[in-house]
Amino acid sequence: MRIAIYPGTFDPITNGHVDIVNRACKIFDKIIVAVAKSESKKPLFSQELRVEMAKMAFLNKPCVSVVGFCNLVADFSNEVGANVLLRGLRAVSDFEYELQMGYANASLNSNLETIYLMPSLKNAFISSSVVRSILLHDGDISHLVPSCVSNFIRNNKCI
Amino acid sequence: MRIAIYPGTFDPITNGHVDIVNRACKIFDKIIVAVAKSESKKPLFSQELRVEMAKMAFLNKPCVSVVGFCNLVADFSNEVGANVLLRGLRAVSDFEYELQMGYANASLNSNLETIYLMPSLKNAFISSSVVRSILLHDGDISHLVPSCVSNFIRNNKCI
Amino acid sequence: MRIAIYPGTFDPITNGHVDIVNRACKIFDKIIVAVAKSESKKPLFSQELRVEMAKMAFLNKPCVSVVGFCNLVADFSNEVGANVLLRGLRAVSDFEYELQMGYANASLNSNLETIYLMPSLKNAFISSSVVRSILLHDGDISHLVPSCVSNFIRNNKCI
Amino acid sequence: MRIAIYPGTFDPITNGHVDIVNRACKIFDKIIVAVAKSESKKPLFSQELRVEMAKMAFLNKPCVSVVGFCNLVADFSNEVGANVLLRGLRAVSDFEYELQMGYANASLNSNLETIYLMPSLKNAFISSSVVRSILLHDGDISHLVPSCVSNFIRNNKCI
Amino acid sequence: MRIAIYPGTFDPITNGHVDIVNRACKIFDKIIVAVAKSESKKPLFSQELRVEMAKMAFLNKPCVSVVGFCNLVADFSNEVGANVLLRGLRAVSDFEYELQMGYANASLNSNLETIYLMPSLKNAFISSSVVRSILLHDGDISHLVPSCVSNFIRNNKCI
Amino acid sequence: MRIAIYPGTFDPITNGHVDIVNRACKIFDKIIVAVAKSESKKPLFSQELRVEMAKMAFLNKPCVSVVGFCNLVADFSNEVGANVLLRGLRAVSDFEYELQMGYANASLNSNLETIYLMPSLKNAFISSSVVRSILLHDGDISHLVPSCVSNFIRNNKCI
Repeated sequence: MRIAIYPGTFDPITNGHVDIVNRACKIFDKIIVAVAKSESKKPLFSQELRVEMAKMAFLNKPCVSVVGFCNLVADFSNEVGANVLLRGLRAVSDFEYELQMGYANASLNSNLETIYLMPSLKNAFISSSVVRSILLHDGDISHLVPSCVSNFIRNNKCI
Repeated sequence: MRIAIYPGTFDPITNGHVDIVNRACKIFDKIIVAVAKSESKKPLFSQELRVEMAKMAFLNKPCVSVVGFCNLVADFSNEVGANVLLRGLRAVSDFEYELQMGYANASLNSNLETIYLMPSLKNAFISSSVVRSILLHDGDISHLVPSCVSNFIRNNKCI
Repeated sequence: MRIAIYPGTFDPITNGHVDIVNRACKIFDKIIVAVAKSESKKPLFSQELRVEMAKMAFLNKPCVSVVGFCNLVADFSNEVGANVLLRGLRAVSDFEYELQMGYANASLNSNLETIYLMPSLKNAFISSSVVRSILLHDGDISHLVPSCVSNFIRNNKCI
Repeated sequence: MRIAIYPGTFDPITNGHVDIVNRACKIFDKIIVAVAKSESKKPLFSQELRVEMAKMAFLNKPCVSVVGFCNLVADFSNEVGANVLLRGLRAVSDFEYELQMGYANASLNSNLETIYLMPSLKNAFISSSVVRSILLHDGDISHLVPSCVSNFIRNNKCI
Repeated sequence: MRIAIYPGTFDPITNGHVDIVNRACKIFDKIIVAVAKSESKKPLFSQELRVEMAKMAFLNKPCVSVVGFCNLVADFSNEVGANVLLRGLRAVSDFEYELQMGYANASLNSNLETIYLMPSLKNAFISSSVVRSILLHDGDISHLVPSCVSNFIRNNKCI
Repeated sequence: MRIAIYPGTFDPITNGHVDIVNRACKIFDKIIVAVAKSESKKPLFSQELRVEMAKMAFLNKPCVSVVGFCNLVADFSNEVGANVLLRGLRAVSDFEYELQMGYANASLNSNLETIYLMPSLKNAFISSSVVRSILLHDGDISHLVPSCVSNFIRNNKCI
């Protein structure tokens, strides 16, 4: 079975993330969306809320499971039996960082293959940090995240 | 009337910013220098001081006005009637970020056209973060910011 | 009067170019689309055909005129009275090249201000070289260039 | 069956290309190495020789087949039933070009998913153009291409 | 005497840093590894520990000396009589930042020549931030830093 | 003796090249400006003329010698006893290409250290291709190349 892990902070999950996972579903048997604790990044949402929102976004996708983790990606991939690490490619800075992390992960877990997918054009410039910036200024994010996530944030005033 | 908004943190305003505004004055009837609160960036100078220094820098430019703001650029542009968002281009990282913010702003306010200007070569590598780093080490910034700003900072020990 | 020049090879003109010109129309009184001879690039279409196709694309835009030229952009801008040079921004490689050419032009004609516009997302990755590559393999380009240009190319087998 | 196509000019095939294909073998059932005619690039080796060298490189890989093609990648992928387009990521310029071609291919064949793999560090800076440059100066390429390819080139003085 | 200064945060020193210094030893008579206080970066290790680890790493290199500093690089270089500032080149983001700092330093100390060295491929993607991230998750860093540094960190639980 | 080689096409030599060599003179005992034949680039000037112009530019610099070469840089460096390869850094595209060539050269001649120097700001965007483009349109290049080179080109109508 081809199991891919898609690690990230998902603070919050966006249409760009969902796009990448939907593409990966065509290639892999199972996708594990792995929500990192990422304490050092001081996320806007708690890990629990980030996991909850990601679960909402993939409710109707049986091949996708969402879990939180707090160790190294290279170690957690081993624990869940993933041999492919999935990443979305967006911009140059991403790319450089991705290469650096990709080589670091390869040096820690040589069984882990990193692959990169390209979101569709309309999702290519969406990022969690833009979403957070709009949220903090009471702007509209309904075109940037799944509607269930946008409703959840609005109704629960969870920030 | 062609009104352009030039948003930023301006912490503090530099010769690079002034260069961009001077170029824009040839093209637009009015330039609004919009100083963001930018709390999450933990600026070195308060928004009030940043507005004050920017005002000094454009004292003799009737077509330039300086204001503070704390909502989304896309919304504030609407409030002041600007239909062009002005940005300076410096480096690759800038450029990627600019595209991302540009598309985010376009998704929030489709009437807002983003244009980029290129500073002259001698101002192309000046940034507020370099200025702050020199300031924090008691170095000389008089060649990087307008002289009124450099005097203001020295005389008021305002850091 | 604010006159902007938009120089390029336009081999052929694409929806990306049209997007940039339409945006510029909101800011400038007149846009001169200047089609370079570009012999050293060995264009697929002759300069005459490239001018003709660009004229078709802007037939209903009175503020746009299309002309061929074969001298330096810095000199030609002077001849036609343009004080703004218009460029579209697409990718990092573009951006670096643009800066280099921008500074070269500024060193030759200090009255010429270079400004950069961002196409809409759906046109952000269209380039003449992709269009030519598809054309040479008998592929469909109707979603990448104005329909009048795509018809003209098909009917005249002009390659 | 998961079929991936890996298109390129392969002028000649390098250890970097072999690295990418070996990684893809862990994920896909079949990899089609598709050698483009690429006339406009004026390749050093004929398409026939480039196909022959690529075949040598994968002689002992039953899941890899090598074919020449001369139409659009988007069309050829359809013909061979591939729904994944495989690319290697190396450098920033690559990356930008890859995005541009990726979006162009997606606009021509929406069933074709593009994925990017990262070669191992020791192959990360090998390119066919460096190999050709060394070949043209009678230098040693045995550390950059598979040994069968390096022997083939030496014995047949095929340039 | 050719004296080069190699400034940085070294939080902690990595095989990538050691690689750069070893290369510089072939060109310069003396290399001063200058460990910045970098308070604003909130380093994981104190400046004292960072100096201590860097000293360990160069114990057997008489041409290398390690010192802490807390003023501007441009000023500290003057104090120690260095006329060359040494930097390692890794990634694009680095490069842009390096140019910006290089020009800032040149504007503050025109006698200071900045040169860039390229680490060997196997060290090209090592960074202190990756090392810190692995350390914080109890991972293995013994392949990324000198063995004396990795032992020191393990034995002293000094984080 | 520290001998550095500075290879390139120098078609023609520019103020940017001269800037890099002048900086290197402070660090190395001897600089060999090595003018490549570069047939595949179809240079505007013959190798003989390119050598002649480079010689003019360094007439009064006893530590600089100019020679033509037509083999690999890695081999030619060995022949002339250079253990440092000198490069100028300008733009991102340069940088990526430089890394690729740097690693290729290191794989061919492990004794050859590549170092990069940064030109001063006013020369940072000068390139031979911009100079050639201006020359071909009868423009003024006197601010971009040494005056002896600009006179030589004008008087000899040598293009």
